[in-house]
Amino acid sequence: MQDIIKNLVKEGMFSKVKDEIVKMNVVDIASLLEELEEEKMLIIFRLLPKDIAAEVFSYMSNEQQQYIIEVITDKEIQTITDRLFLDDTVDILEEMPSNVVKKILKNTTKQKRQLINLFLKYPENSAGSIMTIEYVDLKKEMKVKDSLEYIKQIGVDKETVDVCYVINKNRKLEGVVSLRKLVLTDGDIVIKDIMDTNFISIPTNADQEEIASLFKKYNLLAMPVVDKENRLVGIITIDDIVDVIEQENTEDLQKMAAMTPTDEEYLKTGVFTLARHRLIWLLILMISATFTGRIIIKFEELLQSAVVLTTFIPMLMDTGGNSGSQSSTLIIRGLALEEIRLRDILKVFWKEFRVSGIVGISLAAVNFIRIYYLEKIDLMVSITVSISLLFTVIVAKVVGGVLPIIAKKLKFDPAIMAGPLITTIVDAVALTIYFSLASSILAI
Amino acid sequence: MQDIIKNLVKEGMFSKVKDEIVKMNVVDIASLLEELEEEKMLIIFRLLPKDIAAEVFSYMSNEQQQYIIEVITDKEIQTITDRLFLDDTVDILEEMPSNVVKKILKNTTKQKRQLINLFLKYPENSAGSIMTIEYVDLKKEMKVKDSLEYIKQIGVDKETVDVCYVINKNRKLEGVVSLRKLVLTDGDIVIKDIMDTNFISIPTNADQEEIASLFKKYNLLAMPVVDKENRLVGIITIDDIVDVIEQENTEDLQKMAAMTPTDEEYLKTGVFTLARHRLIWLLILMISATFTGRIIIKFEELLQSAVVLTTFIPMLMDTGGNSGSQSSTLIIRGLALEEIRLRDILKVFWKEFRVSGIVGISLAAVNFIRIYYLEKIDLMVSITVSISLLFTVIVAKVVGGVLPIIAKKLKFDPAIMAGPLITTIVDAVALTIYFSLASSILAI
Repeated sequence: MQDIIKNLVKEGMFSKVKDEIVKMNVVDIASLLEELEEEKMLIIFRLLPKDIAAEVFSYMSNEQQQYIIEVITDKEIQTITDRLFLDDTVDILEEMPSNVVKKILKNTTKQKRQLINLFLKYPENSAGSIMTIEYVDLKKEMKVKDSLEYIKQIGVDKETVDVCYVINKNRKLEGVVSLRKLVLTDGDIVIKDIMDTNFISIPTNADQEEIASLFKKYNLLAMPVVDKENRLVGIITIDDIVDVIEQENTEDLQKMAAMTPTDEEYLKTGVFTLARHRLIWLLILMISATFTGRIIIKFEELLQSAVVLTTFIPMLMDTGGNSGSQSSTLIIRGLALEEIRLRDILKVFWKEFRVSGIVGISLAAVNFIRIYYLEKIDLMVSITVSISLLFTVIVAKVVGGVLPIIAKKLKFDPAIMAGPLITTIVDAVALTIYFSLASSILAI
Repeated sequence: MQDIIKNLVKEGMFSKVKDEIVKMNVVDIASLLEELEEEKMLIIFRLLPKDIAAEVFSYMSNEQQQYIIEVITDKEIQTITDRLFLDDTVDILEEMPSNVVKKILKNTTKQKRQLINLFLKYPENSAGSIMTIEYVDLKKEMKVKDSLEYIKQIGVDKETVDVCYVINKNRKLEGVVSLRKLVLTDGDIVIKDIMDTNFISIPTNADQEEIASLFKKYNLLAMPVVDKENRLVGIITIDDIVDVIEQENTEDLQKMAAMTPTDEEYLKTGVFTLARHRLIWLLILMISATFTGRIIIKFEELLQSAVVLTTFIPMLMDTGGNSGSQSSTLIIRGLALEEIRLRDILKVFWKEFRVSGIVGISLAAVNFIRIYYLEKIDLMVSITVSISLLFTVIVAKVVGGVLPIIAKKLKFDPAIMAGPLITTIVDAVALTIYFSLASSILAI
């Protein structure tokens, strides 16, 4: 389909393009336009029926949106913004340079402009910033058939209609009722009798992570957002929550890999920004790794008389680091999904202790066979290395399991305490165990 | 609320408990029951109205579900299974021991039993295994008002009614139409004129990861599942996809932390299973880390005459490892979210090269100042360490950026090529650079 249209574009057969393209999904139209040169993209964009054009516009990249706004007429901008949903408009404005923002705002109604300004004031990642105001509100005295008639009159064809909100005359939220319940219920029943008063609502300043976990816990499709006086101000729908979940997962991953978290796409982020996000933690970790170096200095004489000991440093450090981050990853993820709670700390400790025992003994055994029998390393050195490995794995796993829970207890972010910090701790412990054991076993 | 009820339970005032508990959300009822002793839990579970009981049952832990099935009567089981949705029943059966499965199957209708058996045959994580069969099917000749009447007759109050499916007499899928569109459209219009024929459907054997990315791409709320002849067999709804997304994220995290991925909860997994999932990769990495050890053996004489070089090994290895996993994490995530494509490999290479230059020079400079001026290390050694650091960061970031893309090109899982494997490669490269530089600069 996309290739056919691309060929038609190449041959300049734009009227045929128009016939074909309207059959496509708006997401696909946007990604097709993304691949065309700017002039051709613009011609086709202008060919689109107005409703489709606005929807396609909301799926385009920021660069193309900016280009379009800069070259089209005020009247064309007006037809797009009239048809854009408020939350999409706000999302777009947040990414545009000021001249483009001005041009868009000039072409919106005064009422919409006020709403936009209100939205732009909500803190990033708060309920206010991700909610939408296109919802259906009902009164509890209404009959079901009148409600359906009312929805037909005001309804916008968007997923926000799937749940309706019942408010009193002060706009306070009293209940929710799903569209399907309205359809399934006899027309003469009164809303009050079928609305669900045991609903979950959230204030405008609630964090999106908290909202996402409520959606997951209660299997919600939409959630009302209320102000301090419990008045309905907007709703959040599941399609936005899917994006929030992916964004939170990305941020957790970045933190666990020792980076400042961001929701910018990699390819769209500048080299200096990327470098800045990575540098801070690398500096902290580089300096903390010098403490590990200090441990080695203390055992300089030992190493001088048995350089062979040095060759096992990478293996001990890597295995310790990997063991620790296995445990910390599982625990951090469990905390994020609320499968593990703070009160489970002793359970985790005991579980990690036993797991690390099994894993440590297996690794130590394989290691001993390999270095003593295959590499013909001295017996005492082989024993030293293998015992050090066992203890390193135990310490790494227990620390990796317990530290994220302690971090959360102290209100730190568990993800930040993950991989990197644990590696540093485990390195220092591993080398201390190794050299102390070597000193006493080898009696140097 | 929960505390009030717990007190009422303690005092044995069960009739009051019943009045209070039905006001709660079913998810909260399930988690409240989770905290009670088995006998009391059972008393309260039996007090619940039948509809609520079935829903609460589907949110309970497998242990409690099993206990309930084992102790309640056949008749009680029947009332629960009659009210359970088929996909929830199948989910529960998959987790139960065979005696419980038998007891449940004995108490379901023959028709339902056949459906359950069909479902249990779909491969794990396929469209067939996560779909549900409670959907609404319409004919394209129907009028909107008749469709709404039909939905009212057969409709189940579940999110699966929000999108309806139009099929022909051979059950082949011809279009989709949302419930809200039916409500918003004039009653005399025919379905054929408002149905969307440009829908996205998926075969029963499609993988859930692919399905989730289609949901995200097209902002879907539900998706039809068809057999090889394009006949409608079920639908998948967004609430199940939210779980799939979290599960896929968990698995990616586990792979990146060098573990065999699993969707079992940590606290519910046995010690031996946990150990097995971790051991394989630790063994592979332990053995590959010995190659790094071999590099050190080659430079034994160098180290003997300048033991101070050994003290910088942990810092170089850790900084290299951290730099590499920063890059690989970003790229693996970008690939998973389809923000980075295979054809972007040169862009990523060039970006990582420049980022690593900035990061590497900064780190090398700080390191030089610290070890030469503060720790008074020999000038030539300080230069060697700092230059090695710069090159290590560059290699680590370029390899970390490019390797996941190459892995994906070769149809390997990029997440597995992440952290652990890259650390091993980077360690070897870092030490080779370091010792080679040391040999020539220090002329030993």
